[in-house]
Amino acid sequence: MNDSANVEIDNTGLAITTDSFVVDPIFFPGGDIGHLAVCGTVNDLSMAGARPLWLTTAFILEEGLPMEDLHRIVDSMGKTARKAGVDLVAGDTKVVPKGKADKLFINTTGVGVVKKGRTFGGQFARPGDQILISGTLGDHGVAILSAREGLAFETPVLSDSTPLWDLTRTILDTGADIQVMRDPTRGGLATTLNEIALQSELGIEILEGDLPFREAVSSACEILGLDLLFLANEGKMLVFVSKDEVNMVLAAMKDHPDGKEARRIGEVVSDHRGRVVMRTRIGGRRIVDMLTGEQLPRIC
Amino acid sequence: MNDSANVEIDNTGLAITTDSFVVDPIFFPGGDIGHLAVCGTVNDLSMAGARPLWLTTAFILEEGLPMEDLHRIVDSMGKTARKAGVDLVAGDTKVVPKGKADKLFINTTGVGVVKKGRTFGGQFARPGDQILISGTLGDHGVAILSAREGLAFETPVLSDSTPLWDLTRTILDTGADIQVMRDPTRGGLATTLNEIALQSELGIEILEGDLPFREAVSSACEILGLDLLFLANEGKMLVFVSKDEVNMVLAAMKDHPDGKEARRIGEVVSDHRGRVVMRTRIGGRRIVDMLTGEQLPRIC
Repeated sequence: MNDSANVEIDNTGLAITTDSFVVDPIFFPGGDIGHLAVCGTVNDLSMAGARPLWLTTAFILEEGLPMEDLHRIVDSMGKTARKAGVDLVAGDTKVVPKGKADKLFINTTGVGVVKKGRTFGGQFARPGDQILISGTLGDHGVAILSAREGLAFETPVLSDSTPLWDLTRTILDTGADIQVMRDPTRGGLATTLNEIALQSELGIEILEGDLPFREAVSSACEILGLDLLFLANEGKMLVFVSKDEVNMVLAAMKDHPDGKEARRIGEVVSDHRGRVVMRTRIGGRRIVDMLTGEQLPRIC
Repeated sequence: MNDSANVEIDNTGLAITTDSFVVDPIFFPGGDIGHLAVCGTVNDLSMAGARPLWLTTAFILEEGLPMEDLHRIVDSMGKTARKAGVDLVAGDTKVVPKGKADKLFINTTGVGVVKKGRTFGGQFARPGDQILISGTLGDHGVAILSAREGLAFETPVLSDSTPLWDLTRTILDTGADIQVMRDPTRGGLATTLNEIALQSELGIEILEGDLPFREAVSSACEILGLDLLFLANEGKMLVFVSKDEVNMVLAAMKDHPDGKEARRIGEVVSDHRGRVVMRTRIGGRRIVDMLTGEQLPRIC
């Protein structure tokens, strides 16, 4: 249930992860499918504590895709890879007849190197761990939806899609004893926290009043009947850290451009094991379920 | 232009390769898309002289794909991976609405380990190198076409799709100084040899009378107007080896179940650099061009 596999060769720890991207539309406010394909895989490696080194990419193109679109996307992948410090080392292209795919699909697979003896995973959460999020929730989901449906907001919502390795390294460099990091992508915050609650067999409590989100995202959710907790993020990370070290880690995150809006949103508890409970603004408590099915398909 | 990227970490050489599979139909005589997806990537690593260790796999499913088909394909991947001695370490699944893909597409990405100091590639071909093929040509291409078009032959033609690492290891274990190995997949023998002629800036001469093929494949080509030289193979390999060592290597290949029908089909020459020439059965000579476009789309 973690996002990468860990393997070892000649005493070097490697992490390997793969993702196919089928986002619709292929261009959206704040990004495109190529940018997303690099970020998604870089971030899965990062969440395993692995320094991303190499990416492969494979394209499935629908006959008739404008070459101009392909060039724009390839350029975007190159730029994002340079920003993330990874090399695109191998590639593949297949073309299928018109109507047998939807414009283009991109697979990226990443290999990274893990510091000896460091392992990360939802199963390592401990009671008392404080839960930090690196920034606002739901931006990517709302950006995709608005592009797909042609919705215009007064303040346009941009996808938060960004490579998270640099922020991750900053966090790990604090020396804090962190063993759980995760990016709340498909299924959003609620699904990710539920996965961790199940993996660790512990409870998770979050505080509704502390969840960070943009005004425009929250309005979009109200109008469209979407639940912010289930919206995808593509440039945010969760960090679990003990009470003793939480201030140090939070300060390091806030000092980083990708973590300026970081905050504490909850903690791990020994009650209601395997479940996520939200304390609401009016003092109530409600169980936050896992997403069954997809609230919003093809968001990545 | 080789099929894998070579990278190094802590003094260990790794090869990385990626391929998406969009074969139509997804089940065909002698294999299925899952089997092919494992073989294709295992073989690309093998041709780089890399022992295949880890595979990732990512599925793009069209809504409505029967679960039964998916199970059959996943089972087939598992069996093929065990046969090839690789671990499937990470996976991903995306679903797109009906009509936005064609049943399913599978990406596999592979990582293998390369023996220190051994590199392989078309650029290393030397004048005088003898060219060996491990078996008959065109089986995969004809198997796919017959399944797609509902053609029935008296003797059914099965895809030759198979993992080639074990045969490759047998060949390398002879100790022969081999630096060019390649599997003639998309574009067939002609395209692969042209790539090597261009990479090495040498000429290649093949002998029409020595090319191995099944009777049924050759008949199918005649009826359908296909050129055997351009038909895809998914379980065959080319090996370039000096005159001194050719008999030793050929004997080792013939001793292996996947190389029983191996034979010498030509040699590398200093003439007609960058070009492949075939000596025909009636004593003529003709230039064998590279395939432009695709003779048969979606064969892998």
